[in-house]
Amino acid sequence: MTQGLQDWIDAFGTALERGDIAAATALFHPDAHWRDLLSFTWNIRTVCGQAAIADMLAGTLANAAPRGWHMAGLPEHDGDRQSAWLGFATAAAQCTCRVTLRDGRATVLFTAIADLTDHPEALGPTRPPGVAHRAVRGRQTWTEAREVRRARLGRQDQPHVVIIGGGQGGIALAARLKSLGVPALIIERNPKAGDSWRNRYRSLVLHDPVWYDHMPYLPFPPNWPVFCPKDKMGDWLESYVQAMDLDIWLSSTVTAARWTGAGWQVDIRRPDGTVTLTPAELVFATGAYGPPRAIDWPGADQFAGTLIHSSAYQDGRAHAGRRAVVVGAASSAHDVAADLWEAGAHVTLIQRSATCVVRSQTLMDMGFDLYSEQALARGIDTDRADLIAAATPYALFTAGQRDLYARIRVRDADFYARLAASGFLLDFGEDDSGLMMKALRTASGYYIDVGASELIASGQIGVIAGQGVALVERDGLVLEDGRKVAADLVVACTGYQSMHRAVAAIVSDDAAEAIGPCWGLGSGVRGDPGPWRGELRNMWSPTAIRNLWFHGGNLALSRFYSRHVALQIKARMEGIPTPVWGGPDQRGA
Amino acid sequence: MTQGLQDWIDAFGTALERGDIAAATALFHPDAHWRDLLSFTWNIRTVCGQAAIADMLAGTLANAAPRGWHMAGLPEHDGDRQSAWLGFATAAAQCTCRVTLRDGRATVLFTAIADLTDHPEALGPTRPPGVAHRAVRGRQTWTEAREVRRARLGRQDQPHVVIIGGGQGGIALAARLKSLGVPALIIERNPKAGDSWRNRYRSLVLHDPVWYDHMPYLPFPPNWPVFCPKDKMGDWLESYVQAMDLDIWLSSTVTAARWTGAGWQVDIRRPDGTVTLTPAELVFATGAYGPPRAIDWPGADQFAGTLIHSSAYQDGRAHAGRRAVVVGAASSAHDVAADLWEAGAHVTLIQRSATCVVRSQTLMDMGFDLYSEQALARGIDTDRADLIAAATPYALFTAGQRDLYARIRVRDADFYARLAASGFLLDFGEDDSGLMMKALRTASGYYIDVGASELIASGQIGVIAGQGVALVERDGLVLEDGRKVAADLVVACTGYQSMHRAVAAIVSDDAAEAIGPCWGLGSGVRGDPGPWRGELRNMWSPTAIRNLWFHGGNLALSRFYSRHVALQIKARMEGIPTPVWGGPDQRGA
Repeated sequence: MTQGLQDWIDAFGTALERGDIAAATALFHPDAHWRDLLSFTWNIRTVCGQAAIADMLAGTLANAAPRGWHMAGLPEHDGDRQSAWLGFATAAAQCTCRVTLRDGRATVLFTAIADLTDHPEALGPTRPPGVAHRAVRGRQTWTEAREVRRARLGRQDQPHVVIIGGGQGGIALAARLKSLGVPALIIERNPKAGDSWRNRYRSLVLHDPVWYDHMPYLPFPPNWPVFCPKDKMGDWLESYVQAMDLDIWLSSTVTAARWTGAGWQVDIRRPDGTVTLTPAELVFATGAYGPPRAIDWPGADQFAGTLIHSSAYQDGRAHAGRRAVVVGAASSAHDVAADLWEAGAHVTLIQRSATCVVRSQTLMDMGFDLYSEQALARGIDTDRADLIAAATPYALFTAGQRDLYARIRVRDADFYARLAASGFLLDFGEDDSGLMMKALRTASGYYIDVGASELIASGQIGVIAGQGVALVERDGLVLEDGRKVAADLVVACTGYQSMHRAVAAIVSDDAAEAIGPCWGLGSGVRGDPGPWRGELRNMWSPTAIRNLWFHGGNLALSRFYSRHVALQIKARMEGIPTPVWGGPDQRGA
Repeated sequence: MTQGLQDWIDAFGTALERGDIAAATALFHPDAHWRDLLSFTWNIRTVCGQAAIADMLAGTLANAAPRGWHMAGLPEHDGDRQSAWLGFATAAAQCTCRVTLRDGRATVLFTAIADLTDHPEALGPTRPPGVAHRAVRGRQTWTEAREVRRARLGRQDQPHVVIIGGGQGGIALAARLKSLGVPALIIERNPKAGDSWRNRYRSLVLHDPVWYDHMPYLPFPPNWPVFCPKDKMGDWLESYVQAMDLDIWLSSTVTAARWTGAGWQVDIRRPDGTVTLTPAELVFATGAYGPPRAIDWPGADQFAGTLIHSSAYQDGRAHAGRRAVVVGAASSAHDVAADLWEAGAHVTLIQRSATCVVRSQTLMDMGFDLYSEQALARGIDTDRADLIAAATPYALFTAGQRDLYARIRVRDADFYARLAASGFLLDFGEDDSGLMMKALRTASGYYIDVGASELIASGQIGVIAGQGVALVERDGLVLEDGRKVAADLVVACTGYQSMHRAVAAIVSDDAAEAIGPCWGLGSGVRGDPGPWRGELRNMWSPTAIRNLWFHGGNLALSRFYSRHVALQIKARMEGIPTPVWGGPDQRGA
């Protein structure tokens, strides 16, 4: 069995070295998938089928010049499949690879850059010395050097990268860039790093468990809680910025950015005035979601009570005994409804369309096997888990998720029956692929149940389902079917715009339109139109606007893909050829 | 070979289970060492020889009731010796053990508590959940609960432990206690955690490398510099306190502590007034050294220039072009002299007695093999390295150090010849056992060369050796041989008192005298009088004063032994029988 794997590796490596694309392609099944993170494509791309693989190789092989394919772990056997982790190198990088064979041909190949050969991260054996061990007259201490660096940054010295947004995305990226020696500056509108978490509603606790949420380089300690409260997360990010010695301008906003033909001019409003920076690269790390969707219900200005978007919701305690209506039925809506209920409000949820709900414990038991104490006990740490997760192309992941949710629905049949009996509309996506696929396709329409579903099932939170808001009156909402719902407080959990709309405000509408929406796989479901793309649109990879990048996502995505954004920027900074295959045509902003 | 090991384990386990001390003792060589950390003795004790082992077993076996001895790793072979890591359990604890056999009998045994069986640390699988996944009316958030806890602590709620001092020692201990569920409060006189590092002289950089310096639970990230600048260390400790959510009163000092017969009354001066706390346990974590030694040279009050102790030295830059005299020739003296030289002062070192100097790179190459990237690559992380280091009794460690320094003196013969040629007095301890043994015996008389030795060897820093200060005059010092040294600045690097003198100021002179000096092994060299004790006096183990503990040392010692101080306190808090063997008679303060 292992011999077959070694034969495949030898044949594949030889074919690529000879430039024999036909021979290389023949080593794949007709329906094989190949996912590449930068190593061949300088892009994040998945191709499917021999023709597409041949096409990709034709466009990338000469520049990639891959060699030295070798097994980097023990082969694994699963039924008629065998898999292994491999290593190889391209002209520019050390790379990792996972191959799965069936009958001697590849069904899945995953290739990814690990490190730029001539520019490795300054980690472990290559970490900075911290001090020169000799006497030097008039030398600066570390503190003095840091003060000088900070004072000069943005004035005498320009950052190579400006990162808009100091949440987990921007911070993780800045840490990666720092360890690659790329000067980066985070612009954060709040007064403290971590405030993007602190500013959210009072009762927020991460819905993902700790093993999934580590930041790069500095994992949470083993006494960190499974589910991190939002202020604790904010404090962690603040400590992280200090520990990593990242450069961040706080209470500062990017007001405009212009492409000069050779780089960016970025206007920053600081508490002490306005500064124009001239970085080479501009990264939008303004949140996985873009700006809040405006509340555009007719009559909204006549409402006598309080009408706010969920992003402005803080605390239910002022609303005890009052009638609160939460419009929406995804994560924010559930959390806000539960917070209001806990505060003693009378809460009604207006659910327009169905929601995918899964119990937190169920997801922990069945959906986070790679990110758990059990995985750690098997030697799978977070970095390894990230690679294992990334090695499955989204098309195959979707199929696996359908299987998972079929099992979840059996396990939790009673839970779902009780919830449905309340009138709440449940779904598992148009193709029954469940919560994670909804997150990837539309970033909407799901809830990991951490308590609100029981309140709904038991009627303690009322539900009006299948109805949208038609208009707002002085004392409440009128729904599409004419029903009236009295309210003192309305929280519109109506979601966010695509991230690319943040570009409109800062660069131009034209640039935003050239880029098009972020996120989504092209799955063809509502909110994620086809054709199938197989990767998240515009995320972490070249966009239609030169030197403009999007970085974001939950903590796990921010952790993993920050590496790839940083490597792309570093390679360009060092003049490494980075021909992008399968990307959009690029132009200046 | 392995069979011999298994036979020994079986025989030893059986003998102990039968209470057959003679049979157990016969399994040791006549000159065997047994080092125990709490598991048998509820003390930190090393015994040597069959009679002492029998004596120790007679005093401890009934309470320890050890059982379940088993191999916990692969046996290792080294010449005619075989060693292995074992596991076992006592009545109270899960324990680790390392045994080394020669000819079928033990030459070295190391036993240590790892975890209290019924009270494991809340780590990994037993970490806190962070949130209850259900709706609860009126519940506190994490932030609110923390605020309430902090507001009540020291008023409505008493800490079980008061830790005097918020340096690495106090902070590491508080973190260990927290994960054991023991309420602890750190009292720190400075305004910020980490200030004990920040307040030191401007140019200070840790002389130990990063792999040796990790705090418990939260290792430095892999991009941390090899040698950490003091302010960066201060920032790290501050972040650590936040990340671990430790309770600390800043800008606060302990003015007095009284034993009531059942616990302590501890008076605290806070910025907002005075508070008396009533903890069960009191820990002095005021630094590996006690208070600075007073400068008692005759005529010191007549000096026209600046005369300070090294603990008050900050920055040489005000002394450019001036005559600076540094009295002393150990670590602080070298660092201060180099800092003054770098600032452009004319520096003379007054060296009274010989110093053990070793080049930093040499120590890195030859002395830190357990704490290095190479060790990590071999799978030896910091916790493992700590256990390996602890498994060697100090008597054997001393012998190993003599071998090491014999090799170091060959390797660096040129360096030592040049340094000696300058007139600088070199030594390697009375028995040639080198720097680390000086640190353990007297915590004085050594320097890890990070640059100052070259300045001395090249004459850029002057040396007057073999002379002490006789008296101070208006414009300089008069040495014992009558020579006069003109000075604008005198920095007295004359060391610190033993830690137990801090007890005198806070509890009573009487209590301090009952305890006696801290530190030192009883090696019989000057400053560390015999008889041989084989463990550091009064450190991390029961003292003559009930419920009074010392914790401290460099980062490595603070990290490792914080576990053992915390376990002793936790066991007592839970009512676990902890009869102390081989300790001092105890009384109330």
